[in-house]
Amino acid sequence: MSLIIIGTVAFDAIETPFGKTDKIVGGAATYASLAASYFYNKVKIVGVVGDDFHQEDINTFTNHGIDTEGLQIKDGEKSFFWSGKYHNDMNSRDTLVTELNVLENFDPIIPDSYQDCEYLMLGNLTPIVQQTVIKRLKNKPKLIVLDTMNFWMDIMMPDLLETLKMVDVLTINDEEARQLSGEYSLVKASQKILAMGPKYLIIKKGEHGALLFHEDKIFSAPALPLAEVFDPTGAGDTFAGGFIGYMAKVGTVNFNNMKNAIIFGSALASFCVEKFGTEKILNLTAEEVTARVQEFVNLSSFSIES
Amino acid sequence: MSLIIIGTVAFDAIETPFGKTDKIVGGAATYASLAASYFYNKVKIVGVVGDDFHQEDINTFTNHGIDTEGLQIKDGEKSFFWSGKYHNDMNSRDTLVTELNVLENFDPIIPDSYQDCEYLMLGNLTPIVQQTVIKRLKNKPKLIVLDTMNFWMDIMMPDLLETLKMVDVLTINDEEARQLSGEYSLVKASQKILAMGPKYLIIKKGEHGALLFHEDKIFSAPALPLAEVFDPTGAGDTFAGGFIGYMAKVGTVNFNNMKNAIIFGSALASFCVEKFGTEKILNLTAEEVTARVQEFVNLSSFSIES
Repeated sequence: MSLIIIGTVAFDAIETPFGKTDKIVGGAATYASLAASYFYNKVKIVGVVGDDFHQEDINTFTNHGIDTEGLQIKDGEKSFFWSGKYHNDMNSRDTLVTELNVLENFDPIIPDSYQDCEYLMLGNLTPIVQQTVIKRLKNKPKLIVLDTMNFWMDIMMPDLLETLKMVDVLTINDEEARQLSGEYSLVKASQKILAMGPKYLIIKKGEHGALLFHEDKIFSAPALPLAEVFDPTGAGDTFAGGFIGYMAKVGTVNFNNMKNAIIFGSALASFCVEKFGTEKILNLTAEEVTARVQEFVNLSSFSIES
Repeated sequence: MSLIIIGTVAFDAIETPFGKTDKIVGGAATYASLAASYFYNKVKIVGVVGDDFHQEDINTFTNHGIDTEGLQIKDGEKSFFWSGKYHNDMNSRDTLVTELNVLENFDPIIPDSYQDCEYLMLGNLTPIVQQTVIKRLKNKPKLIVLDTMNFWMDIMMPDLLETLKMVDVLTINDEEARQLSGEYSLVKASQKILAMGPKYLIIKKGEHGALLFHEDKIFSAPALPLAEVFDPTGAGDTFAGGFIGYMAKVGTVNFNNMKNAIIFGSALASFCVEKFGTEKILNLTAEEVTARVQEFVNLSSFSIES
């Protein structure tokens, strides 16, 4: 039994109003698997890098007990590279460089040792690659979570719609939910999207928290108000990884557990933005995570006597 | 002991993608006092109208047990008139007409029978008029809530800052909090604003809910996700009125009661937007309000075992 996370493993160069980094290890699968590793100890990644990705970079994962057998290393090729610069409000950014490199022909390989997969996180990639992973698993996982973005809605909508039929949970942001559904109201949007296949829909609203939709139920999760967002890179992937890691830990898929999973995912994401890249989520203690979750409880709890 | 609400009493003509109204009774004090009347039976308004405001219009208040002794009727003058048109997303609107009329020289008169005021809601008006009301009360109320807007920050900031020193709670939206403080982060903004005088700050975020700041504590209240917003006019005033009405009902000013007051205010506001103008909040039953508050509880509650 394991949790498989597929997504980009990359080098990022990030500039924010607070400073800039050299190339650091990033990518959706990196953030998500690190986050998941705080809750579950059978996390395995699927991805591809070039031979510029050295042992010390791979140690990012192995230090957290993350299985990298599914991380292909392509000799003579270079890893995916992304460089971006955030604006002063931290809510928008310019992409300076995108070099797909090894990602261009990414054919995800699922090692035999991964066939015990019960929980599957499909990080943002082409819908075709995401589908391929599902098809290469011999047993249907207990829970499949899909992350995607507006880019695939723009250029590969039919493939995305096909993939949506195969997953349990979709995570997108509010603008993407509106684009995917053609509805401005998120309630109406959720109804249309749930009819496309996923049984659960998580709409991420950044500093405004997240909404979980399932059948006719809605859960509204707060975001922790932060004095300073140092670097938002990877926050969404950290959220998704914390979410599915917590679900794998509790082992039962239902609405109440998902509510808690959203809180744990949000807690991990709130750490992520405190430092550059993965720096903060590389070295959290269980006590820090518990204390942060308690902040979410304090933030949103109220008691009305009826 | 009473709750005084001061603010505009007006005629509005509203156009939304769903239709348009003729002149209907509106204004901040109208929405706020109607909302407050669901929780407290000693609500008294202070405002001014022209002789175009007829007995049937005044009945809007008296039918809800709202005292109108402080509502001046100016012979030979016309009531404040506002006309606006909402865009398709309902988040922005164009003002088509603003006729100040009687509001231009509004001098708020506090009848003797209002001097038992314990709770005071200062709806959005010039900071000078808001200050005048505080000064004309012989006893300092237990709780003073001030609503204001970016317009007064633009043209009367020194007066607004002076007024802020005299109030307990400030309600503004997120953009206004940023403008007032010069800080983008709402946490930093709240720290600066709390240093200006108010002991409590409520930041309204529309469809994203509201934040309550007090000392080093924060409460995040959800908004009810709605399939349809029919007409957002008056939602903020309805929220404020429900908030202070609930506070007057419970009678003890503290953070926990304010959290609940925000939920009750949000519940009333969620009704307000379901129909044009005040239509929906004119005829709510106690059962409807209780059921709506329960929706807020269900929406945001989760239970994490530690």
